[in-house]
Amino acid sequence: MKKIINNPESVVEEMLEGIVNAHPEYVKRLEGFNVLVRADAPVKGKVALVSGGGSGHEPSHGGYVGKGMLDAAVAGEVFTSPTPDQVFEAIKAVDGGSGVLLVIKNYTGDVMNFEMAAEMAEMEGIKVDSVIVNDDVAVENSTYTTGRRGIAGTVFVHKIAGAAADKGLELKEVKRIAEKVINNVRTMGMSLTPCTVPAAGKPSFELAEDEMEVGLGIHGEPGTHRDKIKTADEITEHLLEKIFNDIEVNEKDEVAVMVNGLGGTPLMELYIVNRKVKDILQEKGIKVYKTFVGNFMTSLEMAGCSVSILKLDDELKELLSAKADTIAFKQFEE
Amino acid sequence: MKKIINNPESVVEEMLEGIVNAHPEYVKRLEGFNVLVRADAPVKGKVALVSGGGSGHEPSHGGYVGKGMLDAAVAGEVFTSPTPDQVFEAIKAVDGGSGVLLVIKNYTGDVMNFEMAAEMAEMEGIKVDSVIVNDDVAVENSTYTTGRRGIAGTVFVHKIAGAAADKGLELKEVKRIAEKVINNVRTMGMSLTPCTVPAAGKPSFELAEDEMEVGLGIHGEPGTHRDKIKTADEITEHLLEKIFNDIEVNEKDEVAVMVNGLGGTPLMELYIVNRKVKDILQEKGIKVYKTFVGNFMTSLEMAGCSVSILKLDDELKELLSAKADTIAFKQFEE
Repeated sequence: MKKIINNPESVVEEMLEGIVNAHPEYVKRLEGFNVLVRADAPVKGKVALVSGGGSGHEPSHGGYVGKGMLDAAVAGEVFTSPTPDQVFEAIKAVDGGSGVLLVIKNYTGDVMNFEMAAEMAEMEGIKVDSVIVNDDVAVENSTYTTGRRGIAGTVFVHKIAGAAADKGLELKEVKRIAEKVINNVRTMGMSLTPCTVPAAGKPSFELAEDEMEVGLGIHGEPGTHRDKIKTADEITEHLLEKIFNDIEVNEKDEVAVMVNGLGGTPLMELYIVNRKVKDILQEKGIKVYKTFVGNFMTSLEMAGCSVSILKLDDELKELLSAKADTIAFKQFEE
Repeated sequence: MKKIINNPESVVEEMLEGIVNAHPEYVKRLEGFNVLVRADAPVKGKVALVSGGGSGHEPSHGGYVGKGMLDAAVAGEVFTSPTPDQVFEAIKAVDGGSGVLLVIKNYTGDVMNFEMAAEMAEMEGIKVDSVIVNDDVAVENSTYTTGRRGIAGTVFVHKIAGAAADKGLELKEVKRIAEKVINNVRTMGMSLTPCTVPAAGKPSFELAEDEMEVGLGIHGEPGTHRDKIKTADEITEHLLEKIFNDIEVNEKDEVAVMVNGLGGTPLMELYIVNRKVKDILQEKGIKVYKTFVGNFMTSLEMAGCSVSILKLDDELKELLSAKADTIAFKQFEE
C-alpha cells in the first residue's frame, strides 16, 4: 500500500487536524467529535445544512463547509457511516433557530444514522428535516444501498440548497429546492483502478492492465460490469447515454455539467472528457449553463471519473450562480 | 497505460478545447495556438503576466488565467517547452500597453524559448521583462536544468505578481515583487509512483512497492535518491529540513505554506502532511499566515507531494491576500 500516512487507524483524525490547521478562517472542529462546522457557526436565523458520510471522498464533505454551502460536515471513518451521536452534535452546533436540513447520500448506514440523529435532535426541540441524494444511474440497488447510490451530484445539492439557505429561505423551501436538485440530477461513473482503504491495506478489487470498471460506486465497491478500456470519447458517450436513458432533457433545456475526478485522475483527462460532453450536448441542442471540472467527490486515489448532468430552471440557475466561499468551492457572484 | 484519452498525440489539443468549453467566462484560446488568454484580454494599461511550459502540470498554467493572476498561459506538449512563436503570440495578445512580464520556470528549454519570444516581441516595440523561478531545493542541476528547477513555488509568483499587476503597478515594480517571491520561496517534493507521458506509453522510472523517490522533479525525471517508504511525519520532517537548510526563517517570521499534490495523491494525505508541517513550524515559532492544500502543480497522475514555504513581509502578505478569480485559484479579498 503506497500512501503518505502515519497509521491506518488515525488517518481521519489526522486529516481533520490538517484541515483545521490549514483553514481556520473557514472551519472549526467540535472538540471530541469528527465534525467540522463553519468558523462562525451557528448563523442565527439561517437554516443550517449538515452533510457528511464516510471519509475518503475529499474535498467532500469538509471542503464544502462555509458561506453558501454547508454549515457542518460529519466525517465517518474511511467509507464508513458516521455514528448518530456525531451527526447529533453537528446538528446542535449549527442550529441557528431556523432548523436544520440533513443532506444524506443514499447509503443504508448513512440514512439510518442521520435519521436517528434527526430524531435525537427533534427530541431536544430542534427542527430537522432531511433529503436523500440518489443520483447514480448505474444500479438500482448496490452492495451498500437499497435504491440508487448518492455520488457526485450531491455537491450540486450542497451548492444550491446552501445558496437557498444563505438567501434566508425557510426550512420547507430549502428542502423543496434540495429535492428539486435531486430530481433533476443524474450521475454515471467509471474507473481505471481500484482504491485501497488504509485499514484494509489492499485494493478492494482488481483490474487488468487493459480493463476498466463501469458504473462504479465511490466506496471501493466494483461497478456494474468490466470492459476493455475504451477511448475517452467512447467512455463519455456511454456515460451520457446511461444518463439520458434515465432523465428527459430536451432541446433548448439548460443544464449544469460536473466532470468529477475520483482522486487519481489528472485534470488533463477530465478536460478531455468535458470536450466530448460539450460536443454531445451541442448535438442534442442542450445548452450548458455552467461546467465544473475537478475532484469534487473522490474515492481515495481511484483513477476514473463521473459525469453529472443537472437540469436547470430559472430558480436553480440563480442559486447555482450565487456566491459560495468554502475551502474547496469558491464562486464569485455573477 | 491506463488513461482516459483518445489519442496520445492529441491530448494537449483536446484538453485545451475542454478547458475553453468549460470556462468561457475565464479564458479564450488564440486561434491556431496552444495559448489560453483572459477572456477580456488585453486589459488596457495593466502589466500583463504570461507563463506556461510543458503540459501535464494542470491546473498549471491555464487554470491560473484570470483576474489577479495570469493574462496568458502557453501550453507546450506534455513535459515539453512551448515554442517561441507560441509564447510570442501570447505576449502580443495580452499586452495592454504597459508591458509584459514572463514568469518562467527554470528549465533550459523554457528559458531559451520564452527569452527568444521576448526578443521577438521587443522588436515589435512591446516592453517585455522576465523572471525565472527556481524554488526546488532538491538539486543544484538536473536532467533538464542548469541551476535549480522551478516547481510548485511558481504558483506563489503567479498569485503575488498577478496581484501587483492588478493593482496597477508598473512593469519594473511587478518584476521586483516577483523576484522577491522567488528569493523567498523554497520547495521540496517526493513521490510514491512515477507517471506516464501519453506519447511514451510507459512510466519514466520504476519504483518497488515499498520505495519512494525523494527530491523529484515534475517532468517524470527521477529524484535525488530512493528510500524505503516512511511515515507521513518522517517524510514531512525531511522535506522541511531540506527547505530550512536552504533558507533562513526565524522565530516570529510569517510564512505561507503550500502542500501540493502531484496529481494522483488524495487530499486526505495532503492534509495529513499539512498537520505535521504546522506542528514543525509551531515548534520553531514560525507563524503561518496562509495555507494552501491541493493539486496546484502536478505531474500527470504521479502520487506524491511537495511542500513550499514562502517567507512573507507586509507587502507580500497584502498581495497574497488580494482577490483572485481564475479557473483553479479563487480567493475573496480579505
